[in-house]
Amino acid sequence: MANTLRNLTVDLGERAYPIYIGTDLIGNPELYRRHIAGRQVMVVTNETVGPLYLDKVLAALDGYRVETVVLPDGEQYKTLEVLNQVYDALLTNHFDRRCTLVALGGGVVGDMTGFAAATYQRGVNFIQVPTTLLAQVDSSVGGKTGVNHPLGKNMIGAFHQPMCVIADTATLETLPDRELSAGLAEIIKYGLVDDAEFFDWLEANMDALVARDREALAYAIERSCTDKARVVAADEKEAGQRALLNLGHTFGHAIETGMGYGKWLHGEAVGAGMCMAADLSCRQGWITAADLSRITKLIARAGLPVAPPSDLTGERFLALMAVDKKVLDGQLRLVLLRGMCRSVVTADFDAQCLREAVGL
Amino acid sequence: MANTLRNLTVDLGERAYPIYIGTDLIGNPELYRRHIAGRQVMVVTNETVGPLYLDKVLAALDGYRVETVVLPDGEQYKTLEVLNQVYDALLTNHFDRRCTLVALGGGVVGDMTGFAAATYQRGVNFIQVPTTLLAQVDSSVGGKTGVNHPLGKNMIGAFHQPMCVIADTATLETLPDRELSAGLAEIIKYGLVDDAEFFDWLEANMDALVARDREALAYAIERSCTDKARVVAADEKEAGQRALLNLGHTFGHAIETGMGYGKWLHGEAVGAGMCMAADLSCRQGWITAADLSRITKLIARAGLPVAPPSDLTGERFLALMAVDKKVLDGQLRLVLLRGMCRSVVTADFDAQCLREAVGL
Repeated sequence: MANTLRNLTVDLGERAYPIYIGTDLIGNPELYRRHIAGRQVMVVTNETVGPLYLDKVLAALDGYRVETVVLPDGEQYKTLEVLNQVYDALLTNHFDRRCTLVALGGGVVGDMTGFAAATYQRGVNFIQVPTTLLAQVDSSVGGKTGVNHPLGKNMIGAFHQPMCVIADTATLETLPDRELSAGLAEIIKYGLVDDAEFFDWLEANMDALVARDREALAYAIERSCTDKARVVAADEKEAGQRALLNLGHTFGHAIETGMGYGKWLHGEAVGAGMCMAADLSCRQGWITAADLSRITKLIARAGLPVAPPSDLTGERFLALMAVDKKVLDGQLRLVLLRGMCRSVVTADFDAQCLREAVGL
Repeated sequence: MANTLRNLTVDLGERAYPIYIGTDLIGNPELYRRHIAGRQVMVVTNETVGPLYLDKVLAALDGYRVETVVLPDGEQYKTLEVLNQVYDALLTNHFDRRCTLVALGGGVVGDMTGFAAATYQRGVNFIQVPTTLLAQVDSSVGGKTGVNHPLGKNMIGAFHQPMCVIADTATLETLPDRELSAGLAEIIKYGLVDDAEFFDWLEANMDALVARDREALAYAIERSCTDKARVVAADEKEAGQRALLNLGHTFGHAIETGMGYGKWLHGEAVGAGMCMAADLSCRQGWITAADLSRITKLIARAGLPVAPPSDLTGERFLALMAVDKKVLDGQLRLVLLRGMCRSVVTADFDAQCLREAVGL
């Protein structure tokens, strides 16, 4: 049972790739070998994850010409300047267009390594080895890569699909509680977006998830990846349906930008952001007060904040939301709930309700 | 006759786009309107081209919400740091995902604007308005975008196709002689790669081209774009055939990097680089001494250097070539001539011949 390998495929035609989910996968040479074309491999990790898992990955990559880049840990380092360390390492070591990058770490490492792979010599291969719950259920699936800009989060980036994702559930045992909760935020999101059955399951199993029950976590990861892979396959470049996965994110990004990157975890901001989106939906009369209460309670049980930080004023909140990518031609579009677990992208909400939702 | 509009299509399936070639197109509102989706337009130009043509472009864009970024002029400014000026302008002005970028200038402006478009919010539309002969025949066709890195030219970039290319031959009248010659280098390249008939035509018409005869230039641009569009359509991501278009470029990049960006024009380096590739091909016995002489003479008549700078030693030359993108798994691959106007990508050349070709 310990080594059960769950395997699902993100179906993107010629860019289809597998997600491997299971225990003790990170040191399995065969999983890497299937997806590496050349001889040159650059492992990108950070100061926190490197000491824990880098040796295992390097052992699995025995026989390749492997170099390593260790980045500082934290969302505040997800910048073009820090990304340059990866370019420097690639060029200094004369890595060519057939090299493969391996992202070993959480969402920040994955996004930055993916963007380096998207842009080094106009595109090289990469493999995602996510070591946080958030990255396993969210940022390693779907091909979004990029870095932040002082004026907005994830504003510089590209779509670039990995060759495969290796999600080792054993790595979650070393994860701090706050980061476990942050991952649960995205898991709850998949239920809210369009999977009511999964939302029910989460209400029944939240205690087991918080207690890090292996079977519960593996099921939640697989279900989340399946939900996300389905949406991404239908809408790779986010022309429509994929935008639903941003539920809670417009509010959440405003919190992250307003507080300064790194103060709140992304998942924490999304947790509070989903509560705000649900609150606005309730003010619109689209979900009931009972629905709102179920949502807020589940998010609280996951160990997440259910309201924005008190020192972020409503006016500042609205200003921060105006630079979000979901703004099209000056009109603010939000992902809201038109019924329980039925999300929509819409600009058709009452401005006063939004003002109330941000506390004005 | 003055306003003849030549129109050809780069056939890339759903990313197919037109190239408009003719006189006085730059101020034609209709050409822009066809290819702009939203209301927000960012014109990116440089300090040299802006004063000459920006007013005409802005007049043609009347009715849109237009902002402008003026970059410093020169290959040495084709960096991530300078690119940040474009991101800053986009974010400061709250440009959203439906905005369009317009690249008004030469190859540097086109490459940087294209890369900004490829990476702003993971990809927005852009239009190329090339104002140099080099950009009109080369860098505006094919979707290669990017910036330089201190350790190598064009090492950071992406493939991103424009919505259209507007090549106004009237802009060539203000072009310095050196830049006209640099454009002629790429034009000669199309003949050498696989178009012997065009090479013959160039031998017969080089004097007219250097004298800026409008009809001769328009024909040469159209033929070059047609040649390039055919190759790009067959091999968008440069898996094979497209690499032939790098004839002279591996040698040329070594010259540019070795001298420091901006000393030699790209086209000048390619001119000398093609002579070196032809010289190596001749040492291999693949072309005759008479072929080599024809090639060198035509390049000289275009006003281009036919040898590398004397202060670049052969040893340094070889070291610089080793970081070129055409290196696959440590093996140096070059575009050489297997017969007159019959280029090939090959690693199958004699190392001693290469040493002699770089002067060792």
